[in-house]
Amino acid sequence: MLAQRLIERKRDGGRLSAAEWVALSRAYAAGEMTDYQMAAFLMAAFIRGLDRGEVGALMQAMRASGDSLDLSHLTAGRIDKHSTGGVGDKVSLILAPLVASQGVIVPMMSGRALGHTGGTLDKLESIAGFRTRLTLQETRRQLEELGCALIGQSDEIAPMDRRLYALRDATSTVEGIPLIAASIMSKKLAEGLTGLVLDIKRGSGAFIPELDRGLELARLMIDLGREHGCPVVALVTAMDRPLGRACGNALEVEEAIHALHGDGPPDLMQVTYALGAEMLVLGGVAPNTDVARRRMEVAISGGHAAEAFQRIIAAQGGDPRVVDDPSRLPQAREVEIFSAPHAGVVSRVEPRAVGRGIAALGGGRTRMDDAIDPSVGFVIRARPGDVVRVGEPLATIFARDEAGIAAGMASLAEAILITDEAEPPLPLVSHRVTMGGVEPYDGEPWVRTAEFPVFVEPR
Amino acid sequence: MLAQRLIERKRDGGRLSAAEWVALSRAYAAGEMTDYQMAAFLMAAFIRGLDRGEVGALMQAMRASGDSLDLSHLTAGRIDKHSTGGVGDKVSLILAPLVASQGVIVPMMSGRALGHTGGTLDKLESIAGFRTRLTLQETRRQLEELGCALIGQSDEIAPMDRRLYALRDATSTVEGIPLIAASIMSKKLAEGLTGLVLDIKRGSGAFIPELDRGLELARLMIDLGREHGCPVVALVTAMDRPLGRACGNALEVEEAIHALHGDGPPDLMQVTYALGAEMLVLGGVAPNTDVARRRMEVAISGGHAAEAFQRIIAAQGGDPRVVDDPSRLPQAREVEIFSAPHAGVVSRVEPRAVGRGIAALGGGRTRMDDAIDPSVGFVIRARPGDVVRVGEPLATIFARDEAGIAAGMASLAEAILITDEAEPPLPLVSHRVTMGGVEPYDGEPWVRTAEFPVFVEPR
Repeated sequence: MLAQRLIERKRDGGRLSAAEWVALSRAYAAGEMTDYQMAAFLMAAFIRGLDRGEVGALMQAMRASGDSLDLSHLTAGRIDKHSTGGVGDKVSLILAPLVASQGVIVPMMSGRALGHTGGTLDKLESIAGFRTRLTLQETRRQLEELGCALIGQSDEIAPMDRRLYALRDATSTVEGIPLIAASIMSKKLAEGLTGLVLDIKRGSGAFIPELDRGLELARLMIDLGREHGCPVVALVTAMDRPLGRACGNALEVEEAIHALHGDGPPDLMQVTYALGAEMLVLGGVAPNTDVARRRMEVAISGGHAAEAFQRIIAAQGGDPRVVDDPSRLPQAREVEIFSAPHAGVVSRVEPRAVGRGIAALGGGRTRMDDAIDPSVGFVIRARPGDVVRVGEPLATIFARDEAGIAAGMASLAEAILITDEAEPPLPLVSHRVTMGGVEPYDGEPWVRTAEFPVFVEPR
Repeated sequence: MLAQRLIERKRDGGRLSAAEWVALSRAYAAGEMTDYQMAAFLMAAFIRGLDRGEVGALMQAMRASGDSLDLSHLTAGRIDKHSTGGVGDKVSLILAPLVASQGVIVPMMSGRALGHTGGTLDKLESIAGFRTRLTLQETRRQLEELGCALIGQSDEIAPMDRRLYALRDATSTVEGIPLIAASIMSKKLAEGLTGLVLDIKRGSGAFIPELDRGLELARLMIDLGREHGCPVVALVTAMDRPLGRACGNALEVEEAIHALHGDGPPDLMQVTYALGAEMLVLGGVAPNTDVARRRMEVAISGGHAAEAFQRIIAAQGGDPRVVDDPSRLPQAREVEIFSAPHAGVVSRVEPRAVGRGIAALGGGRTRMDDAIDPSVGFVIRARPGDVVRVGEPLATIFARDEAGIAAGMASLAEAILITDEAEPPLPLVSHRVTMGGVEPYDGEPWVRTAEFPVFVEPR
């Protein structure tokens, strides 16, 4: 009757004690509480909310359900980055080798594509042979040797969180801020981190579009990290348009490789450097973000970051030659240009429509067991604010077949809005959140657009 | 994705269209919507509520999930009674044969004990051989021949309701008024009724203790009945103390038999007659409740009601001799008197404590698959307002063994409160609710306490 009693309490807006969260977690693990009881409980928790103590207790219960990555014998800082996800967000692929090349340990645990958002694991698996499922033992060894591993959540880390996430996904209880915070932090703390940088996306394509709810999530995670000796810094970044130009698995890996070679699009680089600078400072290898930025520039221009990526790919069974020759990535059979249907100003490049378009091409998933075609997607040159002529090429569609090209055309026609006037898009990096509070982000853009290499059409 | 979409809508306080309720119901029946998705949906529906149209659509979807009892070839009225349940409520056992003896068809579908409340089916099964699981075909034949059947919900009637009820029971979503109303009415309408009488219990021992929520349930069910051509009349009755004296399965059957022979306790008879009078009027065999009451008195004094019970028992495989000789019912091995620990006024006989006491003796269930010992229970002579001397016998405990007696003593010590003063208990029948609205109940008590045979200690 424990389950019913606790469900009833939460249903009526009451709270569970720390001991009750442990009991709930154990009953579920032992099969004494069923999936349908947990589903009802999660819905009640979603609607009624959890107070601060409950979020911490739930997080601890999930963390304690599995093993931890004990990296305490390593003296270097151990820093991960977590993004709330979006379209075209290939920052992890660049950031992990870049930051690791500077002596920070980066145990980067990522997720898969779902709905309109992409997933780092799916992108990595477009590299032939790349294994994202490492055991804790393998992860530990690779971190000791290379300082970086790009992995999925193993069965050993917070298995309770995995089960609850699958249940939440099926029962429309994913978006609750307390549930999200507890879920992410249970995994991150199990990685044995000494610091965490959050990329809180906002705007129409973000998982949590509203700024205030994004800040609420950031503050909650910062608070949870503080309690467990893991400083957390969050940046709020724009997801009212895709990040960078490439949207689709292999296409994004290719763009990330270009970025590691110094040829990344400016918006992608600005976000990457902003997050990377926080990681280097938290990791104790740079005294401030200005120094951190300069070190990253050198790591890229000197080829160290690209080499680090190559070593990681090789260590995880992938073909490291893709770093020098991205044409080794899966190639789409059909390629077509999408042109401006009329003249005007690009007022929207809607990430959700782009994300759904990738899924329509076969490059995303609507269910966790859908297979993914890594080759398909879009490279979108048009940015909000661009003045365009009729017939001007705005994007390239990469598809399996003619039907895919047609679907891609329709998706882009929906995604790219050309009007007479356009509101300015959201600032790319707008807020920085720390234990001290929320401040406007004052980091100078890393490089002015004019200085940046012009648009490079992949392939 | 249908399930997630509808869950999300209800989660956020939205409504489902009639077509969406049908789609939800079909998806669940087809296994496309899982139990855990339904559990999350039901929790959202519990917290956010259903509007009037949604309750009707859910009820229709559940009703349409199974067969109906087609009794339209019978010209007589077909009337059932439904009680929201309580402790000592053996009214159905008396009412069904009593009303059927007057030419009304009574297809009485009842439930089982759960938690602190008893269940008519469990009571009936304390009669050796009694079968409560009849097929629709058997039920139909028995109604044609005897005008009455005492049955459980078969697999053929509203199977969706059965599944949802089991899920709600496990996930603490039983008490929601819209869900209760839809559940009860889906079954009642499938019985092919021409009228329904509700006994809405209120007070500390009721499933829904608060008067306002009880009235809300009554009004909702009356409304649903009206829409489907089934007039519903509700009486609000007291459940701040047990009804009658006997509490426990065989003990209650024995008390019901005494009542059919004219020896029932006054409170039990008053509620039985009040409900029965409504049934006779709705069934078209009495022009008003006064005439109905007189007809019932004659049915009891003339032995017709007891004979009807005997015929029903025989038809359903039970031993009809219990009606003449209740000592054929299962007998408890140990019997002990509970006496007043000190002098004073009986201020409470708490039904929930009594109900839990029956369960502690082995005569109730905390889970649907618990087995029941029909012989155990209490006969409680003390009524709220009684002035008692120290050592005066207040109740009799019937148990399996000495440990049961001790448990029974502890339960009664908790249930029966003796103080210096006592508030008057709730009026036995307080409100009558019809399509026209709520009115105070003005039915004269059927018989004054003083005229009634004094306390008869069973066995």
